[in-house]
Amino acid sequence: MTSSTPDIIRLTGDGLRFLDQTRLPAEERVVATADYRDILEAIRSLRVRGAPLIGIAAAYGAVLAAREICAGASGTDSGDSSCRERMLAVCEEFASTRPTAVNLFWALERMRTVIREHDAADISRELEREARAIHEDDARRCAAIGRHGAEIIPSNTSIITHCNTGALATGGDGTAFSVLLEAHRQGKGIHVYADETRPLLQGARLTMWELQRAGIPSTLMTDSTAAMRMRQGGIGAVITGADRIAANGDSANKIGTYGLAVAAHHHGIPFYIAAPLSTVDLALPNGDAIPIEERASAELTRWGDIPTAPEGTSTYTPAFDVTPAGLITGIITEGGICAPPFGETLAAALP
Amino acid sequence: MTSSTPDIIRLTGDGLRFLDQTRLPAEERVVATADYRDILEAIRSLRVRGAPLIGIAAAYGAVLAAREICAGASGTDSGDSSCRERMLAVCEEFASTRPTAVNLFWALERMRTVIREHDAADISRELEREARAIHEDDARRCAAIGRHGAEIIPSNTSIITHCNTGALATGGDGTAFSVLLEAHRQGKGIHVYADETRPLLQGARLTMWELQRAGIPSTLMTDSTAAMRMRQGGIGAVITGADRIAANGDSANKIGTYGLAVAAHHHGIPFYIAAPLSTVDLALPNGDAIPIEERASAELTRWGDIPTAPEGTSTYTPAFDVTPAGLITGIITEGGICAPPFGETLAAALP
Repeated sequence: MTSSTPDIIRLTGDGLRFLDQTRLPAEERVVATADYRDILEAIRSLRVRGAPLIGIAAAYGAVLAAREICAGASGTDSGDSSCRERMLAVCEEFASTRPTAVNLFWALERMRTVIREHDAADISRELEREARAIHEDDARRCAAIGRHGAEIIPSNTSIITHCNTGALATGGDGTAFSVLLEAHRQGKGIHVYADETRPLLQGARLTMWELQRAGIPSTLMTDSTAAMRMRQGGIGAVITGADRIAANGDSANKIGTYGLAVAAHHHGIPFYIAAPLSTVDLALPNGDAIPIEERASAELTRWGDIPTAPEGTSTYTPAFDVTPAGLITGIITEGGICAPPFGETLAAALP
Repeated sequence: MTSSTPDIIRLTGDGLRFLDQTRLPAEERVVATADYRDILEAIRSLRVRGAPLIGIAAAYGAVLAAREICAGASGTDSGDSSCRERMLAVCEEFASTRPTAVNLFWALERMRTVIREHDAADISRELEREARAIHEDDARRCAAIGRHGAEIIPSNTSIITHCNTGALATGGDGTAFSVLLEAHRQGKGIHVYADETRPLLQGARLTMWELQRAGIPSTLMTDSTAAMRMRQGGIGAVITGADRIAANGDSANKIGTYGLAVAAHHHGIPFYIAAPLSTVDLALPNGDAIPIEERASAELTRWGDIPTAPEGTSTYTPAFDVTPAGLITGIITEGGICAPPFGETLAAALP
């Protein structure tokens, strides 16, 4: 991202500054708040979104909560205990915001460990250190994903991607987007086709914004155009992010990813997932157990104030779908590219 | 449709009344005009749309033009000739509005024959007779498509459809929609999943409106949700309309139909096209020769006044895609259901 890029997320002594992504591309509005409840709302309403960035935002949100809750802690055993209890309750609140992305739970588990291991007087400072570490760690993971992923991008090809996976979704250059960025920087001559990604248009609003800022040649299309574009030829790969990856490689990602994988398979086009290893959830044997968030009906039946469907319309609005491992060519992680069988390669890649 | 349904298209002595479909579902605005230029604009801007209805609207548009152009014809040979020439030029104008739907060209060819065979004094009356015949003929075709198609709909199943194919798209009960309507009337207990159909949301705005009025249990979803819904099971068939069918059965229809057919194939779900035989274009050996309309970039980059993508975004906006015959289980026509090989069965079904 260029130096004129607004703060996507940044902790200061006064609070947290973050870009309200629901306002893009019309407006680059940076919100500044010291109240962790605003971060809860921002995650729920997708002002801050993207699996890795949700984890980072929740970690910073816990810091804001600690500044409020633990600042006046008494320094007594009961004061420490009360502060810890209240902070663990705040972590629960953050855990309830979005059910699918596992990075959220992973980041919160790191915060909980800090809370349990420190006195009230130290919790705020230690949580800040941990949150900044999570953020910086994610930036390094993004860079490594980009380096590994660029190796499988052919020269002079077009790539299809879905939803948003760049700096707006992570603590660094992105997951799938980092691969595109690195391939572009290496002069591979790629052209990116971005699905608009209904219903919230993260592809149109956010990915096109990132592609333009990075100077990557790009074209926007409806989600429903991808299969036709594949049939026309010249698509070297499809690359998306993931919100949760089960032990066998089944991957949950933004609704539409599965259809894209089916179409890529039909056309013999490699389909890659790019995600940090914090996205892998070994507790789930396969994708059937991944909880799938359903969004509000209004995301489909209204556009701002304008109804886009008749009153009383029933909707089916899963925010994610699951792509079975059998349709995935490789999973690009900071530890390298995992090939099938993912049950073995993912386990080996995990620290 | 119920008796309270507004005029979708109706010729009166004063002019043509039609429902401005771009205002649905927010408003049921009926436009009344005596100026054929308003019909040209209405077809271009999709106020009136749907392959069969475009043909009907163009035919009625030619009637309006004849009332204007031929009313004062002198009754001399040169007057007749001038009137015919001007009317044929009007037919050319209508032919240039939308390139993909062949029903438009088919209806205009019928109008041209009338123009060539009559004196100026009779053209207006004869065109009106022909336009009404095209309209009534289409209503009969719709009914026959519904009867034939209902035979292949299992009981207690869910059906996925795309775009809009009902009374708003035809001169009768529709093509694919007529099949759904007839199956529902027969008490088959169907549930319809309607794709919203980006970018112009004909599924959300129009098909949901028609499904509700017909009392058919229904659910709206994004185009990108269809593949996931198929994987969950319980989908008995996918049925869509078509804008042009080549001699070998390759079928052009609203963008997204091809991806839907690929996904149906992947899940072993039957995929049907429902269309009147006027949609078949034997002049084209296969779908590669079907001209595909590209729509304005703004349909993807703006929503009303709100930008949905950054300034300067490049877009790819085909309005249609082509589903190869190999992915089509059957083509439901007024003459019965054509099975593969379509090269033989379509030719046999044509009058």
